[in-house]
Amino acid sequence: MERSDQPPDVVIRRLPLYARSLRYLLEEGIHSVSSQELGERINVTAAQIRKDLSYFGEFGKQGIGYDVEKLLHHIERILGLNQHWPVVLVGIGLLGQAIARYEGFRSEGIEIVALFDSDPAKIGQRVGDLVIQDFANVRRVVAEKQVKLAIIAVPALQAQRVADVLIEAGVRAILSYAPMILQVPEDVWVRYIDPVAVLQSMTYYLAREQQH
Amino acid sequence: MERSDQPPDVVIRRLPLYARSLRYLLEEGIHSVSSQELGERINVTAAQIRKDLSYFGEFGKQGIGYDVEKLLHHIERILGLNQHWPVVLVGIGLLGQAIARYEGFRSEGIEIVALFDSDPAKIGQRVGDLVIQDFANVRRVVAEKQVKLAIIAVPALQAQRVADVLIEAGVRAILSYAPMILQVPEDVWVRYIDPVAVLQSMTYYLAREQQH
Repeated sequence: MERSDQPPDVVIRRLPLYARSLRYLLEEGIHSVSSQELGERINVTAAQIRKDLSYFGEFGKQGIGYDVEKLLHHIERILGLNQHWPVVLVGIGLLGQAIARYEGFRSEGIEIVALFDSDPAKIGQRVGDLVIQDFANVRRVVAEKQVKLAIIAVPALQAQRVADVLIEAGVRAILSYAPMILQVPEDVWVRYIDPVAVLQSMTYYLAREQQH
Repeated sequence: MERSDQPPDVVIRRLPLYARSLRYLLEEGIHSVSSQELGERINVTAAQIRKDLSYFGEFGKQGIGYDVEKLLHHIERILGLNQHWPVVLVGIGLLGQAIARYEGFRSEGIEIVALFDSDPAKIGQRVGDLVIQDFANVRRVVAEKQVKLAIIAVPALQAQRVADVLIEAGVRAILSYAPMILQVPEDVWVRYIDPVAVLQSMTYYLAREQQH
């Protein structure tokens, strides 16, 4: 495999899982790991890990395995997590509050820096370290803080309008919890968190088994 | 394409999105739709929709398009959503509360029927229509209600133990919000909701663009 190959998206999506696993290993005081051991932790074969990583260079030594810290830093650099990525969160309902307070978003290069809602009853309230701002101010904040990433946790019917405003303001990647597909320009990334659809894809398999 | 082909998982994962889009169309009073129009709503080509649906039979008529209601019912039947799927939710922190109250889980064949936590301060509290129960009772409830689906919203370090108990009790499919990979028997389905990993896969692309 040529190093100049573009890694497929499915590989890019696995890299954060490798990074997290390596972080857990470090916390456990483990500094060297074989592709076999790393694979077992994330239900991927050792061959898959070696293939995934080969897109990005040479890692690990035959028979010795990977230096956990080095590999972690390398993957973080590949993912751009050695940079700081400010994120705005729009929609501070129950879900938005849970997201705003979630420790996982606070580490690993990503930080929620501003919360927005358009409900006057919410604007001005504090959630964790941040105060909910009026969505009318989102353009200014996105521009000032050079925000490229946004999380949308508004109802489905408001999601497209919110996305349009964010993109106009300069946001280039959106994580949306709204159960609808957003229409965005080609140079904007959108990914969805859609637990109902995920559950419904599993009922397919369970229902089939019942029939057999 | 033979109808006996097993549809790939990626097709199964798209079916809930088709179903949701068809439901939106019905709400808008639209009863007939072309694969083109349906495709535009979910950012899939018309050819992809026709190919996806061809795994399950013949739908729509050349030049007329799909009968929205019929196609919706057909997809719901394929996904097993004509059945009732009781779901237990374990871990009633902020995220668990947001999930428990989320209307989206209440429709479309899926219903959260019981909430569990092991924190004595939470047990007995009401969230929406349900009362938080002691996780020690989960086996009995899963057996009594014949629950096959569970949602896990506990911290990473507790997720494996919770999954083990659920699976022993009879759960066959798990949607996990915990940021770690679960080890489960081969006949158990697990899917993950992992917003941090999803965001981090987008920073890869944004970071690359900055370099060019």
